[in-house]
Amino acid sequence: MNLVRAADLLSVYRVVFLDSYGVIKNHQGLIPGIQGTIDFLNGNGIPFRILTNDASRSQIAQVEKFDEMGLKGIEPYHVVTSGMMARLYLKFKIHAGIIAYIGTEQAAEIILQDHGRAVPVHQIDLEMSGEISAIVFLDDEGYDWRSTINHCLNILRRVNIPVIIANTDQIYPVTKNDVSLATGGIAQLIENVIRRNFIKFGKPDSQMFSYAFDELLKVGHQIERSDVLMVGDTLHTDILGGNRFGTRTALVLSGNTTKANAQLLIDSTGVRPDYILENIIL
Amino acid sequence: MNLVRAADLLSVYRVVFLDSYGVIKNHQGLIPGIQGTIDFLNGNGIPFRILTNDASRSQIAQVEKFDEMGLKGIEPYHVVTSGMMARLYLKFKIHAGIIAYIGTEQAAEIILQDHGRAVPVHQIDLEMSGEISAIVFLDDEGYDWRSTINHCLNILRRVNIPVIIANTDQIYPVTKNDVSLATGGIAQLIENVIRRNFIKFGKPDSQMFSYAFDELLKVGHQIERSDVLMVGDTLHTDILGGNRFGTRTALVLSGNTTKANAQLLIDSTGVRPDYILENIIL
Amino acid sequence: MNLVRAADLLSVYRVVFLDSYGVIKNHQGLIPGIQGTIDFLNGNGIPFRILTNDASRSQIAQVEKFDEMGLKGIEPYHVVTSGMMARLYLKFKIHAGIIAYIGTEQAAEIILQDHGRAVPVHQIDLEMSGEISAIVFLDDEGYDWRSTINHCLNILRRVNIPVIIANTDQIYPVTKNDVSLATGGIAQLIENVIRRNFIKFGKPDSQMFSYAFDELLKVGHQIERSDVLMVGDTLHTDILGGNRFGTRTALVLSGNTTKANAQLLIDSTGVRPDYILENIIL
Amino acid sequence: MNLVRAADLLSVYRVVFLDSYGVIKNHQGLIPGIQGTIDFLNGNGIPFRILTNDASRSQIAQVEKFDEMGLKGIEPYHVVTSGMMARLYLKFKIHAGIIAYIGTEQAAEIILQDHGRAVPVHQIDLEMSGEISAIVFLDDEGYDWRSTINHCLNILRRVNIPVIIANTDQIYPVTKNDVSLATGGIAQLIENVIRRNFIKFGKPDSQMFSYAFDELLKVGHQIERSDVLMVGDTLHTDILGGNRFGTRTALVLSGNTTKANAQLLIDSTGVRPDYILENIIL
Repeated sequence: MNLVRAADLLSVYRVVFLDSYGVIKNHQGLIPGIQGTIDFLNGNGIPFRILTNDASRSQIAQVEKFDEMGLKGIEPYHVVTSGMMARLYLKFKIHAGIIAYIGTEQAAEIILQDHGRAVPVHQIDLEMSGEISAIVFLDDEGYDWRSTINHCLNILRRVNIPVIIANTDQIYPVTKNDVSLATGGIAQLIENVIRRNFIKFGKPDSQMFSYAFDELLKVGHQIERSDVLMVGDTLHTDILGGNRFGTRTALVLSGNTTKANAQLLIDSTGVRPDYILENIIL
Repeated sequence: MNLVRAADLLSVYRVVFLDSYGVIKNHQGLIPGIQGTIDFLNGNGIPFRILTNDASRSQIAQVEKFDEMGLKGIEPYHVVTSGMMARLYLKFKIHAGIIAYIGTEQAAEIILQDHGRAVPVHQIDLEMSGEISAIVFLDDEGYDWRSTINHCLNILRRVNIPVIIANTDQIYPVTKNDVSLATGGIAQLIENVIRRNFIKFGKPDSQMFSYAFDELLKVGHQIERSDVLMVGDTLHTDILGGNRFGTRTALVLSGNTTKANAQLLIDSTGVRPDYILENIIL
Repeated sequence: MNLVRAADLLSVYRVVFLDSYGVIKNHQGLIPGIQGTIDFLNGNGIPFRILTNDASRSQIAQVEKFDEMGLKGIEPYHVVTSGMMARLYLKFKIHAGIIAYIGTEQAAEIILQDHGRAVPVHQIDLEMSGEISAIVFLDDEGYDWRSTINHCLNILRRVNIPVIIANTDQIYPVTKNDVSLATGGIAQLIENVIRRNFIKFGKPDSQMFSYAFDELLKVGHQIERSDVLMVGDTLHTDILGGNRFGTRTALVLSGNTTKANAQLLIDSTGVRPDYILENIIL
Repeated sequence: MNLVRAADLLSVYRVVFLDSYGVIKNHQGLIPGIQGTIDFLNGNGIPFRILTNDASRSQIAQVEKFDEMGLKGIEPYHVVTSGMMARLYLKFKIHAGIIAYIGTEQAAEIILQDHGRAVPVHQIDLEMSGEISAIVFLDDEGYDWRSTINHCLNILRRVNIPVIIANTDQIYPVTKNDVSLATGGIAQLIENVIRRNFIKFGKPDSQMFSYAFDELLKVGHQIERSDVLMVGDTLHTDILGGNRFGTRTALVLSGNTTKANAQLLIDSTGVRPDYILENIIL
């Protein structure tokens, strides 16, 4: 396993996509030195985007959170979330009826702002299931799991409506060692039991890569997919997604994947990054 | 789809295995006429067993429950539960350490009675994970889902110990239309996230068929597997399990599978019963 | 199930994506009347693209084939194949070494034209596995299945290299009733045995949708994804892919999906088209 | 990883079940010293059985093969094969019609000897599909893969009949480094494409464990499942199967699993043997 240096990569690629957790920050806060990396990108006119599986915060709220942690130089347009993709999908595809959601009211306000009637799943009367036009999984918080999961299951036994997962992550870190089950894990449980296809947003699916790339084309950058370096800490989301979309991919060892298990995970999954580096710090 | 009559089958087979829910009882109580079937089996000296995916009640408690509903003629030895299979497994394989369980204290008292130290998962201190020798999924009740599922996940990230599922059912009926997620569904969620093999008890796996068949051999019945008729309402547990074990199989339309969807389900899954009948009533 | 008329849809949408088999042609040849539909699109300046899971023919060869069947008005730029997507991927990601392929020499000439050294898998000496930089599945023809599959398996046990599937279809129709196993089915067999992630091109993945959409943007069309109607005969490729990408979707009953099984398949899979229509004929 | 000595285990357990390949023999022939182990078991009156996923040879032919390799002291009743289990199943469940098989004529003669009409799949006229009562996968040899797999697929699209897999192994070793795809792998391919449940015989399913255990009970051994030690070289067949059935399990490092990858495989799969030992040689 040959490690390369961040400096050698950032001076070569014309565009950089960054995962957030494990690349920019971790459970302790910002990864030391990350300000230097953002400053280098901004200073050298290298466009970058932060692609994050998250449906709980808006672009502005994401930037405020970075700012609060001490990281400057990130603008709302730099941030692309799986929640934004879900919002666009719902805006284009769902035009009437109630959207039932699973998650916090705060998340619903962001993702479902284009819709008149958004109601938490647990407030839906089963007899009124026919009025629902979609169910959306937003977050693992804001509801009692037992009653809400069972209620959702029984609604879906009554009506065949689109189910949208705004963040496919199965788990998320809460401390150095511990994790919590995420929205994607809860949604997959119900998907398995009900045996239907839910519509998923988040890496490794290409929507966020495609959105970020198209935005850059729209503002006039003359780029190919192979001009982009995707930097992430997770093989089956960041690296698999980047490989499929056609970017170059760099695995950093500052998050989920460690120096001890990187080669093993690459060999056993067959998901190969183009580069491996300690972190994205210059 | 040619329906046969229960009377024609019960006069031919030397042994009968019955599923409980959907065959003997349903959400409204006993299936009308089932007393006649039990009386016929007892009266004609046809040995029978009730094979049920359940880890919440002992054999005695199962009989008491039938008695309370008005059904007579069932003895504890007639009942074979997935919980009994899990108990035997734990008795033979786990000889020391704490057994952490997920479910009610009542279920733990039955299944874990051979073990000195049985502790609910949510009472386990993560720092003491190393003292646990097994985790057992017993029931979907008796705990807060969010905190217990997350706690279980974090224990399993620390230690690689056997995980036993005492009932593999994913859902169970609570009213005519509605279901509740069962132990097996919750366990599978964690199994998927943690990507390890849990040890499962319950139809379609053969342990309950094998146990019931061996008990009959032990008390002197000279039978082959093909002398047994397995009667059940669910293709992927009762019928698949019976087919694999080598019994003849009869699908009844008094439970999960209805006259309207039976042929479709058979064709789409490839799980074929030897017979289809309205119910097991004479 | 309310059927809509093709004329009502084609007069509304600004862009049309069409699947090929089951929409434009079937095992008997062109679907009667399809020339009228192509003429309507060309005549009214409605841009269209044909999105087909195929890696055996170039864009030009696809057009020649349509022409030979009697269909006029289709230009090479109208055609987007999964093979083109694989070719672009290989061009951007693989820069040295041998590319080993499974399929016909003709397919290899198209897909691997940017690479110096393309060798059929069965000609690779196992001792030289280290010199291969990628394996590409192109077609189900051009090789002996037994020896080639086993050879491929043993190469992949020696080296962890990217494996690219240029067409994910599992089966393809050969007559009215009969099918043949396709490249995607063979590749999936090896993927299951070797337990690694292969890189797949073909609907429902978004690469072809994304490519066709981006091409339209590049030539100046001011369109949103919701301006596009994807017309296909298969739920889990055309409709699922279109739904995820954000186009509107129309299921036609002139191919894989029939009037008899459409509603059942929609309900059981949860893949819902926006419209259902007999065919795309005006 | 604490290794135990074979001598310490064989003096404690009352019954021993042995896998064949990787325990008794490997690609080079007998594992040196295995005669001593067989002699010890025979000499001390410790009943043993050889449980092997194989449907190509009869019990007698298995013994002749051991004899030819130089191993004495094995009788036909010592051998339990997955093919025997399939034969019993077919005998009890299929009473009329043609049985279509995939494999060698020699294998068909053994497994299908109780049936009047056994015909190779590739000789079945598709128009006569209705006369077939079952399809049986016996072996990976004896047929052209492409035409036979496609023919089988098209038969199964016409009729919904039981499909039996007489050996679930996906691969088998042919040299020190190389493997060949086995019957189970080919069958799984078709099962995936056709989306139906096939009936499988072979470890880890319990039929062979159950058969061997019942035979010992029938000849008068007073044993519990926990009195049996299952010795095997493969976690997901021998050890998983033994664990589920309730035997104690010993992983040997003389076959598929090596000292280098044993702990990793145990941790990543969650399949834990009770013991690990170099080999079963005294």
